[in-house]
Amino acid sequence: MSKFRTIWTTDDRYVEVIDQRLLPHELVIVKLTTYQQAVEAIKSMIVRGAPLIGATAAYGVYLAVREMIEKELNPDYLDTAFSELRASRPTAVNLFWALDKMQDALDNADNFLQTAWEMAGQIVEDDVETCRMIGVHGLPIIEALSKKKNGEVVNILTHCNAGMLGCIEWGTITSPIYQAAEKGIKVHVWVDETRPRNQGANLTCYELTKHGIDHTLIVDNTGGHLMQHGLVDMVIVGTDRTTRNGDVANKIGTYLKALAAKDNNVPFYVALPSTTLDTTIKDGLKEIPIEERNQEEVKYVVGKSASGKVEPVLICPDTTKAVNYGFDVTPARLVTKLITERGVCDASEEGILSLFPERQ
Amino acid sequence: MSKFRTIWTTDDRYVEVIDQRLLPHELVIVKLTTYQQAVEAIKSMIVRGAPLIGATAAYGVYLAVREMIEKELNPDYLDTAFSELRASRPTAVNLFWALDKMQDALDNADNFLQTAWEMAGQIVEDDVETCRMIGVHGLPIIEALSKKKNGEVVNILTHCNAGMLGCIEWGTITSPIYQAAEKGIKVHVWVDETRPRNQGANLTCYELTKHGIDHTLIVDNTGGHLMQHGLVDMVIVGTDRTTRNGDVANKIGTYLKALAAKDNNVPFYVALPSTTLDTTIKDGLKEIPIEERNQEEVKYVVGKSASGKVEPVLICPDTTKAVNYGFDVTPARLVTKLITERGVCDASEEGILSLFPERQ
Repeated sequence: MSKFRTIWTTDDRYVEVIDQRLLPHELVIVKLTTYQQAVEAIKSMIVRGAPLIGATAAYGVYLAVREMIEKELNPDYLDTAFSELRASRPTAVNLFWALDKMQDALDNADNFLQTAWEMAGQIVEDDVETCRMIGVHGLPIIEALSKKKNGEVVNILTHCNAGMLGCIEWGTITSPIYQAAEKGIKVHVWVDETRPRNQGANLTCYELTKHGIDHTLIVDNTGGHLMQHGLVDMVIVGTDRTTRNGDVANKIGTYLKALAAKDNNVPFYVALPSTTLDTTIKDGLKEIPIEERNQEEVKYVVGKSASGKVEPVLICPDTTKAVNYGFDVTPARLVTKLITERGVCDASEEGILSLFPERQ
Repeated sequence: MSKFRTIWTTDDRYVEVIDQRLLPHELVIVKLTTYQQAVEAIKSMIVRGAPLIGATAAYGVYLAVREMIEKELNPDYLDTAFSELRASRPTAVNLFWALDKMQDALDNADNFLQTAWEMAGQIVEDDVETCRMIGVHGLPIIEALSKKKNGEVVNILTHCNAGMLGCIEWGTITSPIYQAAEKGIKVHVWVDETRPRNQGANLTCYELTKHGIDHTLIVDNTGGHLMQHGLVDMVIVGTDRTTRNGDVANKIGTYLKALAAKDNNVPFYVALPSTTLDTTIKDGLKEIPIEERNQEEVKYVVGKSASGKVEPVLICPDTTKAVNYGFDVTPARLVTKLITERGVCDASEEGILSLFPERQ
């Protein structure tokens, strides 16, 4: 599984990704041959997770460049591709980061096609290395807990999927976990199902199963109770955008787990590649726009029925309306530490700038 | 709908209830003709909600008495019925209360059958009046919020179903809401879907729809975000057991909403009939046993598929294990006030005893 990736190329005419909407029930590979398909893959959540969205968008730019050159289209075509890719998900800051990186590279390029190809590839390789390093820096935290418990199982709670399926390889929150398991440290993961889209139940459980990591699925309501009873040693979550002050936007419900962690003295970690840092804003609650998604995701739950088909079931009266906020913001005061590819720091401007002085 | 009840008799040979597992998709009435069926109805959650469980158990005793007399069975039969009914759900304190009331009545009875029938009927009528009075005392809280907002809509968040479907009529948390709506106060309810069994999505949305109350379904993860953004004026939940100190056992996830309410200065109310008060215990976290239910309720979600059938869908890998705690305990420090049939009080021993001095 560690050789397995979430996005790859076997031919320079397309890029391949896993349709994550069908996991864990079916493993379907999707070929993206146009930037429009890349936009659609991001919008419809065939791919999800901040780093994977960034990588998909980067290859989307490459596909647009290829089409522009082959069909001798006006350069406006590329501008349109950039804006459509940029608008595909509002919260994911490293979508913007990846697109800026592609833009900068193309601005200075002699050979557009080759530059786009290489830069997209580099974004992918950089993410793999970044995630590996997050694991290197996060591992000592798990090791210390294991030692404190005299080698007993370390219980780790997570929300949503910030695993390898949200990245390219390793994952953010899973990287320390996989590296701890490789070192023989006993770990067990409490997996929040993460309604409405159940990325915890669908994806985190899937990849932990594939990696042979002991885990237990819980509904999103359960974490507080577990923490009250000493059954959680640490919480670790990913983030879609973290502000200069250390406020953390992540999947809706993260804030509730952070409150429970605080109330029960359980350390609450956020693992992030620095590409998700947005040091241009400070107050996460006021400044991060929160994506509002389709209400059908709340009214219906998708799963595998007795017939073996992956399909939605309605859980409320037809006429009931629903709202579907994709993210919430956990204030920095509830975050114990940020775990980045450069090391561990406080969730504060001072902490972040100590590791990333170039963001001054 | 206000004339509609959740349990009723049209014949003295059986009692009728709604199979709440099929709501909101199908309205199926179930006849209970033996105490074993009453036990099964409670265990399998055909009926649920503390007061309705109590009423069903009371009629279960009546059905056992009837069978014992008709079949000339040994009085042990009745003892067995009592213990099986008592063991049908571990958390619901007014299950025990209702059974004690039936036991006391039978201990002093000349005519067993008539006494059991009358006492079960009285338990039902008492609950209707109790819930009505909870509404009378809770209404001024909603009225005050409406006034403070100059008549704008009062946004009320609730978790699980503590509505009429959990009771006989009126409900506990819905009684003030229904009475406010009858007075023309504008209310809107945020309904937590309440995984794993989705009683919010299935039942609260159903009965609010039937009563014409404006409401919006949300996933359990959303409440914190809404409170951070001033979109919730009050939280109101029910309880299965409240201790002498004011600790509140309620559906799993309640504690997380209470933490969010505290963090955002949103008042957090618990509506309860005094039958759910358990003044024999103090520390809810240490003393209330938390029911652990079947893991299938977490791994599968039940809803209506495209074929129109109400059926379960699997949301995780087959091999993933899950845990399913039914309840959690919200410490009294997070509860603004208790709303009872005798009035509103602090969630503390002093507050509770001021309204219920006989519990001294």
